[in-house]
Amino acid sequence: MSSSPQTTAKGYGISDTKKYTDFSVKEFKLKTLTPDDVTLDIEFCGVCGSDVHTITGGWGGLNVPWCVPGHEIIGKVTHVGDNVKEFKVGQRVGVGAQVLSCLKCNRCHEDNEQYCPEQVDTYNAKFPDEVEAQGGYSTAIRTNQRFVFSIPEAIKSEDAAPMLCAGLTVFSPLIRNGTGPGKTIGIVGIGGLGHLAIQFAHHLGAKVIVFSHSSNKEKDAKNLGADEFVLTSDDKFADKYFDKLDFILSAADASVIPLAELLSTLKIDGKLTSVGLPDEPWKDLQPQAMASNAACIGGSHIGSKKEVNQMLKLAAEKGIKPIIDEVLPMSQAAKAIEGVKNNKVRYRYVLKQDLA
Amino acid sequence: MSSSPQTTAKGYGISDTKKYTDFSVKEFKLKTLTPDDVTLDIEFCGVCGSDVHTITGGWGGLNVPWCVPGHEIIGKVTHVGDNVKEFKVGQRVGVGAQVLSCLKCNRCHEDNEQYCPEQVDTYNAKFPDEVEAQGGYSTAIRTNQRFVFSIPEAIKSEDAAPMLCAGLTVFSPLIRNGTGPGKTIGIVGIGGLGHLAIQFAHHLGAKVIVFSHSSNKEKDAKNLGADEFVLTSDDKFADKYFDKLDFILSAADASVIPLAELLSTLKIDGKLTSVGLPDEPWKDLQPQAMASNAACIGGSHIGSKKEVNQMLKLAAEKGIKPIIDEVLPMSQAAKAIEGVKNNKVRYRYVLKQDLA
Repeated sequence: MSSSPQTTAKGYGISDTKKYTDFSVKEFKLKTLTPDDVTLDIEFCGVCGSDVHTITGGWGGLNVPWCVPGHEIIGKVTHVGDNVKEFKVGQRVGVGAQVLSCLKCNRCHEDNEQYCPEQVDTYNAKFPDEVEAQGGYSTAIRTNQRFVFSIPEAIKSEDAAPMLCAGLTVFSPLIRNGTGPGKTIGIVGIGGLGHLAIQFAHHLGAKVIVFSHSSNKEKDAKNLGADEFVLTSDDKFADKYFDKLDFILSAADASVIPLAELLSTLKIDGKLTSVGLPDEPWKDLQPQAMASNAACIGGSHIGSKKEVNQMLKLAAEKGIKPIIDEVLPMSQAAKAIEGVKNNKVRYRYVLKQDLA
Repeated sequence: MSSSPQTTAKGYGISDTKKYTDFSVKEFKLKTLTPDDVTLDIEFCGVCGSDVHTITGGWGGLNVPWCVPGHEIIGKVTHVGDNVKEFKVGQRVGVGAQVLSCLKCNRCHEDNEQYCPEQVDTYNAKFPDEVEAQGGYSTAIRTNQRFVFSIPEAIKSEDAAPMLCAGLTVFSPLIRNGTGPGKTIGIVGIGGLGHLAIQFAHHLGAKVIVFSHSSNKEKDAKNLGADEFVLTSDDKFADKYFDKLDFILSAADASVIPLAELLSTLKIDGKLTSVGLPDEPWKDLQPQAMASNAACIGGSHIGSKKEVNQMLKLAAEKGIKPIIDEVLPMSQAAKAIEGVKNNKVRYRYVLKQDLA
């Protein structure tokens, strides 16, 4: 390594899920340095639904005593380890929702590092040496180069940030399930994830059917590339779309969508993948709901570095970008969290560095 | 048509799901004759879990005032319509769990007639002209030739009967999900369906891992072709089989299997298909259970005629057959129903004609 980089950073974190907007600024230890690490100064960080689920305890208690959320991170490289050839000091890069995996298993070797059983989340997690992983509502982050991404020049930093979790989370299942010309793809829920999914599916060449319970989202859906907009409050919608869809990506709260009706719109052997990870389980789901067309319900977890690069290339070429409600100073993280929690955001908040 | 065939038959039916063993013998109307119909005198009928779910009301109330169950039917052709070239009077044939579909839609044209939205179940259902469809605990059945199957000479009638629902229900999802050489297939539950699934998966060339909560099923599982037997009461089983399975077919009650643990044994993008259709919904299932490997949970419904023929050919070639606990006279249907309901059957009862 060329020089000794910083060992700590400062961030906005919380320590009690019952007081999830009580952010305190503290110093914390960065990942223990290795020759494969990249260190960056953070400039922007998107505010993700995961941040809300985590700090409100919706997905369970905290795994660390004090937690800095944020995993849609854009910044400038300040240090690279000796093994790092892909990045240079000063380069603009991003970090998403994963900061480590074993890098040795089949899954890691086959561009499925997001499914490595030793994967480490960007925050509310610990590195193997027990150093706590803290997120992007902070001044800096350090992690293994596999989990650092180049950002194409054509994409503005604040637009790139939400791509790294929201974008990737929808892009990966879309391409893994054949989204492209000749396919009819359903997108359920138009929020931080869904509004990017509509654009990706459209620009990948598919016919895009958007399902929503809010009629006031129709205009946005069409502007983003939806070919058709379907109100799920219309109790006839399932009949109209029977046997029409090749794949459905649900970015809505999985526990409240009209699951049986949506499944019935799938062709034989079709799949509905839910990337909306709710606090509550499905209600009254039986295999019978999938017996009339051999449909299935699937899960997905972010995406691989290969997919990040593919996504950013497509976004740069096609002008795909998030609709950003507001860029707020990081000190207003609480305001952003409340806006996401109360479903007021249209469609993403991005925090801008104000600690460094 | 060469002559006017019978218009009625006699059967054992029930009229109250609370008194599901109170079988009465009555005469009922056969399907209204068309030139595409085959009429057969029934010799044997298997007793399926569906019979129990239906007549006990587990899947909901009856759709007809009096219901003759039974959809694993073997008999001899007594009449064929003018359009029927595949079958001759006197020929041994079978009928399974479906007796009609529209025969015009894409699904019907593409060997997916079991997923036709106008499909008619063999019993507890009505034909489009409102004639009630009655099952195989009876003297005769008439239906469209598409839903009548030739039985290879090598298979005994009592062995062929359970193939037509139990066999097909597992064979179709096995072959549609790639069961064959080089694949590792999990079978959950060893009962009427599972004990056939093990044999099919084995003879299709896959490595077969059987999951069960009963250690007393191990010997049977191995004899039927299981390469490994896994006790799901061992709380370490999921760790041992992590990332090992290509596909899992669950023939157990879907609401009580250790679903999250089973899903974790699947490779990336693997599927668990449940053909066990329980009375109760899944408990506490969230998409999170499928997020760690992009797994999915699917359904399936019997199979197509093409698959019946493929299954019976394989069974004849490889000597695959059900283990029949007992062949009972049809008048003892109640005994068989209780044996299935109380999970005492090992592994199938077959009823023999005693009314004709």
